Amino acid sequence: MPFVNIKLTTGVSTEQKQELIAGVTDLLVRVLNKNPASTHVVIEEIDPENWGIRGESVARLRQRKEPGVSGS
Amino acid sequence: MPFVNIKLTTGVSTEQKQELIAGVTDLLVRVLNKNPASTHVVIEEIDPENWGIRGESVARLRQRKEPGVSGS
Amino acid sequence: MPFVNIKLTTGVSTEQKQELIAGVTDLLVRVLNKNPASTHVVIEEIDPENWGIRGESVARLRQRKEPGVSGS
Amino acid sequence: MPFVNIKLTTGVSTEQKQELIAGVTDLLVRVLNKNPASTHVVIEEIDPENWGIRGESVARLRQRKEPGVSGS
Amino acid sequence: MPFVNIKLTTGVSTEQKQELIAGVTDLLVRVLNKNPASTHVVIEEIDPENWGIRGESVARLRQRKEPGVSGS
Amino acid sequence: MPFVNIKLTTGVSTEQKQELIAGVTDLLVRVLNKNPASTHVVIEEIDPENWGIRGESVARLRQRKEPGVSGS
Repeated sequence: MPFVNIKLTTGVSTEQKQELIAGVTDLLVRVLNKNPASTHVVIEEIDPENWGIRGESVARLRQRKEPGVSGS
Repeated sequence: MPFVNIKLTTGVSTEQKQELIAGVTDLLVRVLNKNPASTHVVIEEIDPENWGIRGESVARLRQRKEPGVSGS
Repeated sequence: MPFVNIKLTTGVSTEQKQELIAGVTDLLVRVLNKNPASTHVVIEEIDPENWGIRGESVARLRQRKEPGVSGS
Repeated sequence: MPFVNIKLTTGVSTEQKQELIAGVTDLLVRVLNKNPASTHVVIEEIDPENWGIRGESVARLRQRKEPGVSGS
Repeated sequence: MPFVNIKLTTGVSTEQKQELIAGVTDLLVRVLNKNPASTHVVIEEIDPENWGIRGESVARLRQRKEPGVSGS
Repeated sequence: MPFVNIKLTTGVSTEQKQELIAGVTDLLVRVLNKNPASTHVVIEEIDPENWGIRGESVARLRQRKEPGVSGS
């Protein structure tokens, strides 16, 4: 039953996505005894221009090399 | 008022999307007497690499031709 | 795989919810040949005070008996 | 804490996205005294073919130049 | 068309919700020339026990009077 | 940046929610080197009557003691 939606900015590798999917599923099995066959994990990659924090897009903050917004 | 969000993996044709939009709207009119003019249906197509089930991405499961993950 | 999220205002009966779940699932089976066992439908009922349209909450619009916002 | 998700159809410029991010953040600071550093705004641009209203996709309604569906 | 979803922790008054609905709608009219009649704003209030930041629930952080997590 | 939304049926204890929040945050730190201070995890508990699978609500499936739908 659980449906887990992970929104983060673009720049995640195929291997990292697989690690996130496996890690979230294992966590739900361990903590809630969930069935992996009905545990859905969906990763949504957002363009840094479309993600705002501190009133500005992450794209602009990164252009100015502001701390705390590198990576995805 | 109703807002319906349909998440599924990529590979849906234009005609199929139109069928889903019409079908969901008709259902909400029939069951809840909703106004089609304020019934929103948004379809989000997810890359199979970004959708996890059974602890693995659908992309990997399809590569191994696992049952139950074909199509979108 | 499909995950369908239906947001609407409160006031939906148990039977109506069951009709929506069955109707959406049948639609996805018919249009996309989906497997009902991995087709999830989640209904979220929103307080009319928390749903805004025309710049006002549905609760206020209904108090003034504005057209087009009755029901759920 | 607030997480604001704005779904609209494609066709929004970089400047408009920045205006939306700044405007929503300012609103949450003014009304709820929120901290901009923990106020997230995510804009999701939807293909007009994937957004349905009145039982039809926005793409089809725009092709027929129907009123009320221009822009994003 | 725009659908705006605002998730924040519980503790928002009726007046504040109305201000958020009006403010977001005005912003979308001003920046994107949107039609208020098809601009939906949905506020979802989350129990502080169900919202995690810094690896802990907001409820626990507030119990310890940690900075930056007061209010909603 | 990451925003993780976990939807599951009601019946999760306070301790289990805290475990999920901590576990998801640790996973994002380990896999993507994320900053816990900007990693949000929101748990949404859904009434079994509002969650459909196999074309029926989980509430009905549980009443008939169908396999694979116990717990949350």
